[in-house]
Amino acid sequence: MSEFLTSRKKDYSLWYNELVKKAGLAENSAVRGCMVIKPYGFSIWEKMQSALDTMFKETGHSNAYFPLFIPKSYFSKEASHVEGFAKECAVVTHYRLRNSADGKGVEVDPDSKLEEELIVRPTSETIIWNTYKNWIQSYRDLPLLINQWANIVRWEMRTRLFLRTAEFLWQEGHTAHETEKEAREETLKMLDVYRKFAEEYLAIPVYSGIKSESEKFAGAVDTYCIEGLMQDGKALQMGTSHFLGQNFAKAFDVKFSSRTGALEHVWGTSWGVSTRLMGALVMAHSDDDGLILPPKIAPLHVVIVPIYKSDDEFTRVSEVALKILSEIKSLGLTVKFDDRKDHKPGWKFSEYEMKGVPVRIALGPRDLQNGTAEVSRRDTKEKKLYAISTLEKEIPKLLDEIQKNLFKKALDWRTQNTCQANDFAQFKKVLDETPGFVMAHWDGTKETEERIKDETKATIRCIPVDGSAEKGKCMVTGKDSARRVVFARAY
Amino acid sequence: MSEFLTSRKKDYSLWYNELVKKAGLAENSAVRGCMVIKPYGFSIWEKMQSALDTMFKETGHSNAYFPLFIPKSYFSKEASHVEGFAKECAVVTHYRLRNSADGKGVEVDPDSKLEEELIVRPTSETIIWNTYKNWIQSYRDLPLLINQWANIVRWEMRTRLFLRTAEFLWQEGHTAHETEKEAREETLKMLDVYRKFAEEYLAIPVYSGIKSESEKFAGAVDTYCIEGLMQDGKALQMGTSHFLGQNFAKAFDVKFSSRTGALEHVWGTSWGVSTRLMGALVMAHSDDDGLILPPKIAPLHVVIVPIYKSDDEFTRVSEVALKILSEIKSLGLTVKFDDRKDHKPGWKFSEYEMKGVPVRIALGPRDLQNGTAEVSRRDTKEKKLYAISTLEKEIPKLLDEIQKNLFKKALDWRTQNTCQANDFAQFKKVLDETPGFVMAHWDGTKETEERIKDETKATIRCIPVDGSAEKGKCMVTGKDSARRVVFARAY
Repeated sequence: MSEFLTSRKKDYSLWYNELVKKAGLAENSAVRGCMVIKPYGFSIWEKMQSALDTMFKETGHSNAYFPLFIPKSYFSKEASHVEGFAKECAVVTHYRLRNSADGKGVEVDPDSKLEEELIVRPTSETIIWNTYKNWIQSYRDLPLLINQWANIVRWEMRTRLFLRTAEFLWQEGHTAHETEKEAREETLKMLDVYRKFAEEYLAIPVYSGIKSESEKFAGAVDTYCIEGLMQDGKALQMGTSHFLGQNFAKAFDVKFSSRTGALEHVWGTSWGVSTRLMGALVMAHSDDDGLILPPKIAPLHVVIVPIYKSDDEFTRVSEVALKILSEIKSLGLTVKFDDRKDHKPGWKFSEYEMKGVPVRIALGPRDLQNGTAEVSRRDTKEKKLYAISTLEKEIPKLLDEIQKNLFKKALDWRTQNTCQANDFAQFKKVLDETPGFVMAHWDGTKETEERIKDETKATIRCIPVDGSAEKGKCMVTGKDSARRVVFARAY
Repeated sequence: MSEFLTSRKKDYSLWYNELVKKAGLAENSAVRGCMVIKPYGFSIWEKMQSALDTMFKETGHSNAYFPLFIPKSYFSKEASHVEGFAKECAVVTHYRLRNSADGKGVEVDPDSKLEEELIVRPTSETIIWNTYKNWIQSYRDLPLLINQWANIVRWEMRTRLFLRTAEFLWQEGHTAHETEKEAREETLKMLDVYRKFAEEYLAIPVYSGIKSESEKFAGAVDTYCIEGLMQDGKALQMGTSHFLGQNFAKAFDVKFSSRTGALEHVWGTSWGVSTRLMGALVMAHSDDDGLILPPKIAPLHVVIVPIYKSDDEFTRVSEVALKILSEIKSLGLTVKFDDRKDHKPGWKFSEYEMKGVPVRIALGPRDLQNGTAEVSRRDTKEKKLYAISTLEKEIPKLLDEIQKNLFKKALDWRTQNTCQANDFAQFKKVLDETPGFVMAHWDGTKETEERIKDETKATIRCIPVDGSAEKGKCMVTGKDSARRVVFARAY
């Protein structure tokens, strides 16, 4: 790790891109807008997947898999859905190539034109509700609680690794219910699963709430979201949960015979988080030396680096290191002994700092004499000597402390960067001086929302659904406002 | 479960399709050739994934993710690859839709035509080796041992659920090595991982060996495979492992500086198994009552069905059932107590038989009196009374026995249906009378292989690589043959 990162202060955006590449998370591919998720980055995504998948299953959901392709006509069936989605997407028009006439390559065979074009899924509501039509006849078939882990394509013009890519990985839950009440409960339940995951695993505090009309999902009645604050003061939408009402049931004619014998349209929800969470993770915690990972989603918890001069020292240090390794392993933690001889300890230290490994143990001949080991935590860079005999007890405590500290630090950051603004001038000033969330009154109209966006680039991140409503006057128009809403400039 | 299946004897193909649908494994979607993998089917696939993923990681591989789309020109870079692959595939030509002039739907925006068409990956060697070019500079970067779980599209004309679908799920390993020896070892190591998985998890004995020239992967030097025998006497290729030589390294200019300082092309392998294994699983073990699952990949190991007449009986039976449930659960097994009151025990029995749950426990008032429970195993349908107090000890033993019995049964079936043929007439007779594997001598030419296929529909499934070589004369041409090879009619 002879290379270092551009500092966050100097160029936050460049720092982000460099970190994502140098920590081995992802890189751009030869295909426009599509990324390669590299092994280390993917191993973090696997930890996220595993935690989320467990939470989904604990709340009664099963996984399934639906087709990658959606017939073009499906998008026109739900009126607002087509407006929001079917426009920028990958269109499959042919199904065969042939040798080109010049013999030098292949070309599309014009005879293989599809009767109806297929769209690579930008989200799967349409194909899934078209399938649910056959799965749901009676209230006994409900609720239907299904999730899918899949790849998604949206033809974004400006892309950034993890944050906005043409192809990305995600999960999409699609549920069907007897009643509006049950579907609304499901929407909020999954929103809370996301909040919990963001806070307890990713150590990122989030505001949860409802989107304004103009920011909601195309096809939803209500869109709920969780919003995190990054270190540059910009907000990042980290997950959404949609109450679909009967919109897709009506578009795809999904009816069930109810307990009273009536034929009714089914109520639906959908909810998703994506590899965008990888971007949130990087931007919420990391520093100028590299990634900082919350232990709960770190693929490697502890690395042991030997310090030695002679082969004899290496042998003696290794022996103790391997004992420590097996002790820590037996706690169910992942731990690695880096015995590579072609790199110096300092080089290894930098490498594991870049990769965000939460705890590093350095062990040298002097430590053996004293029965100690130098333990360094990635989040604060604090170093401390521990008696080797206590490591088994201390390491789990330390990991727990790191997890909590990262959340606290992120929460403090959000607290410091969440302000109230009572008039538009103050709003603009606050946005520039302490970038972050601004709580302000808004008259509830699309026009005012647009004006705020045009003049400040800030958008309504969400309208909180907790009990904190406080009446007031819109900061722009002076009209009545039922409550402050959460504004920020956002990714 | 009032519906039953067509019997295997009456129509094996229909039996398969009905079973796949009625057991809740998969169904056809509205998109030609693409299937929906239903929750129960997907939960079996998840068990397969989990076991395989563990085996891949234990052998040093990491997961990563590469783009869904591959630029068309990449396929022309490896000469034989393009012949085998790039022809029947989904081609993305445009990236935007627009509202149609009649206002009734959407149409492809002609202005969004891509400069170079993108192919939805039919396999990922090309995009991955193009990426490896930047990852590999020195022998220190090798070996590179990467796997990807992904969806794949091949525009098949005739499709069958799991066995041959336009879109399917799979894993594809792609490794890069310093030397030919190491790459060849990797190829065989992963072939053996597949053999082990097929035999120890799926309980399907397989022949492993090398493919003939005409059956090998387009772009490989050598293709190895595992072949299982289905109950109709047809073979099914269950996994392949390819030694790629330096073919893709040369096509994508992937060189490394070796230990001697020379610049050399990298050696490669690739290997994969797919949702086709779900088809193998169904066809190898199941019967006319439904699915039979080996316990090691069964999502649900045990179901407890209460037998009762009155509410009081139900309460008393439930109490004991829940105790049994918690005991079995504590062993790390999955178990369900089916307390639904709207279905009779017999209906439930049929349902769990259709779904292939390995062990069923029926518990009624008389059992409570006697301290017994009726335990039924799905594979043999044998029922036996056990003392309730011994269930905790007996159930794991029984599951183990079922796993072994399924393998033994499949092995016996293969033994009975593997014959030798010494001349072409005998070969044809054997194929018709005892469909299965036929071991016969072949002169090693493409012409003879084609003639055999044309006249009998049998193909060379593999050329065994064990030590069983026995010289002889080709059954068709009488020319010299170094060893018998494995023929069968196949899926």
